[in-house]
Amino acid sequence: MFVFAAFIVRRSFVVTLLAVSFVVIACAGVSAQSDPLPSWNGGAVKKSIIDFVSRVTTPGGVDFVPVEQRIATFDNDGTLWCEQPVYFQVAFAFDRIKAMAPQHPEWNSTQPFKALLNKDMEALAATGEKGMLQIMAATHAGMTTDEFSKAVLDWTVDARHPRFNRPYTDLVYQPMLELLAYLRANGFKTFVVSGGGVEFMRPWMEKIYGIPPEQVVGSSGVVTFQIDASGKPSLLKTAKIEFVDDGPGKPVGINRFIGRRPIFAFGNSDGDLQMLQWTAAGAGARFAGLVHHTDAEREYAYDRQSKIGKLDKALDQAAAKEWTVIDMKRDWKTVFPIKR
Amino acid sequence: MFVFAAFIVRRSFVVTLLAVSFVVIACAGVSAQSDPLPSWNGGAVKKSIIDFVSRVTTPGGVDFVPVEQRIATFDNDGTLWCEQPVYFQVAFAFDRIKAMAPQHPEWNSTQPFKALLNKDMEALAATGEKGMLQIMAATHAGMTTDEFSKAVLDWTVDARHPRFNRPYTDLVYQPMLELLAYLRANGFKTFVVSGGGVEFMRPWMEKIYGIPPEQVVGSSGVVTFQIDASGKPSLLKTAKIEFVDDGPGKPVGINRFIGRRPIFAFGNSDGDLQMLQWTAAGAGARFAGLVHHTDAEREYAYDRQSKIGKLDKALDQAAAKEWTVIDMKRDWKTVFPIKR
Repeated sequence: MFVFAAFIVRRSFVVTLLAVSFVVIACAGVSAQSDPLPSWNGGAVKKSIIDFVSRVTTPGGVDFVPVEQRIATFDNDGTLWCEQPVYFQVAFAFDRIKAMAPQHPEWNSTQPFKALLNKDMEALAATGEKGMLQIMAATHAGMTTDEFSKAVLDWTVDARHPRFNRPYTDLVYQPMLELLAYLRANGFKTFVVSGGGVEFMRPWMEKIYGIPPEQVVGSSGVVTFQIDASGKPSLLKTAKIEFVDDGPGKPVGINRFIGRRPIFAFGNSDGDLQMLQWTAAGAGARFAGLVHHTDAEREYAYDRQSKIGKLDKALDQAAAKEWTVIDMKRDWKTVFPIKR
Repeated sequence: MFVFAAFIVRRSFVVTLLAVSFVVIACAGVSAQSDPLPSWNGGAVKKSIIDFVSRVTTPGGVDFVPVEQRIATFDNDGTLWCEQPVYFQVAFAFDRIKAMAPQHPEWNSTQPFKALLNKDMEALAATGEKGMLQIMAATHAGMTTDEFSKAVLDWTVDARHPRFNRPYTDLVYQPMLELLAYLRANGFKTFVVSGGGVEFMRPWMEKIYGIPPEQVVGSSGVVTFQIDASGKPSLLKTAKIEFVDDGPGKPVGINRFIGRRPIFAFGNSDGDLQMLQWTAAGAGARFAGLVHHTDAEREYAYDRQSKIGKLDKALDQAAAKEWTVIDMKRDWKTVFPIKR
């Protein structure tokens, strides 16, 4: 409520200044101490977010939504953190193969491992989807959920992004961290709904995003319950794919895990289209947003032709339906959090 | 915190009185206005619950558990509400067949529908598991999630239990409602983890148990995303079974949906054994509880030989591991909520 009241004050202030000059307005937007989204530049995009939150949280207003129905869902790769030059979960898998190689001498003479260990990217690409599945199986299955969780956490500490030379969990979008906090301060329950593996995301998201494991929806493999001779139970990760939380799988995953329709959703690619359609088609006020990667200098620029995070149909539909499209270069004052 | 502080006062009070007489103690337990579990009789079972909550919520104590890790999971059928003479979801399916029959004249001459409509329970039983699956498919698939949710809600209003002549959602256990509220007042997040269908449970559990849809884990069928010619998306329930959240499926479901191990779990049958094992095997303070149905007069009495809610192996393991076993007749002052 504090945030909301502060925003009302700020808006009145801006409106008063409108007659004076646009320069002053811009400065007011920047300097207002109470701005809940300080890393967002002023403009239509920022306004659309704040207006929506204001409308659904104003008691007695026509668009008011009770707290328990304020469900917000966010894609992860390319929406909450960077997804280039490869999905970070793939970077994790590659790093794990290198780390596990000493225990697997046979990999030195077997594809796709040999190609990866020799940094022969052409030979690796030639192994195709089958090779990728082998790498994912070798790094994501045949261990307990606890062991896998530890491997992920170790990687978030040790690994570095090739371009930015920072831990991968540093390459989250500062404006989106502010948006998550702003929504929660206004009674929203924030969820991740990602094509990424749920066991890969949960170990670090509570600390980095403030999103607890039970609010992370993702793809999953079959996990089996086992008890050893001493009576100790564990959960074994297998290589069998169980659920792909992408494209039409996202509304299915939302229904399965959350059990109610979001009123607010954010994505960045065609894999998020159905989640946005499902969110936008509900009754009452709805917010559907897309992150458009337009900033090659500070991050990356890609959309319709990209192999990773292709944004084509969803961009057309956003224009037709008047969804909010973030232009990263224009709308974000900062991209990543300041180095700690 | 209010509840917790009140309990501390009550306990000191009881301890002081210990030297006087057991009669006085019993009365004090009953009459204490601040008792968070008024429908539970005093004794070892009630004490084990309150002691556990006290230990994990006392800052600085050796058993203290941070709020975000206070996950409590409850089976539903036979643990939070009655499950006799048939699982209530089966009663729903049977009632739906009767309600849908006018639109299905072919059912008058086709098994298992014919048997059910003619109340020929012997012929119905003869159709076996195949017949049951046909009834479940006819009543649980081929409709959207929204349509199914409405059918469930209508049934909770209209249908009556054959013995108690009350709506099925009235036949929840008053002591367990108090336990859920008591845990939440002490920072626990309460989840249902049931073999029942997740789409059958979610529509009414928020109102009846105070448990929101996103904290209900259950069995599920495959759901598919579809968009009609006008662009309206919906989720279609199909008859294909996707996940059975029972027995070893319960720790798997907990891992998939919640993503962390409970510290507190309650069940009532062998289908809950693995959930209790998984919960109890974690590090630190753990609570594992079973409801033992011993009260034929007020509810039902059944255990090792029962077809529904069989409690055999889990009862043995509870004795060996010193889990808390509720004797319904002895430990519950009231069973169902007072009629409204």
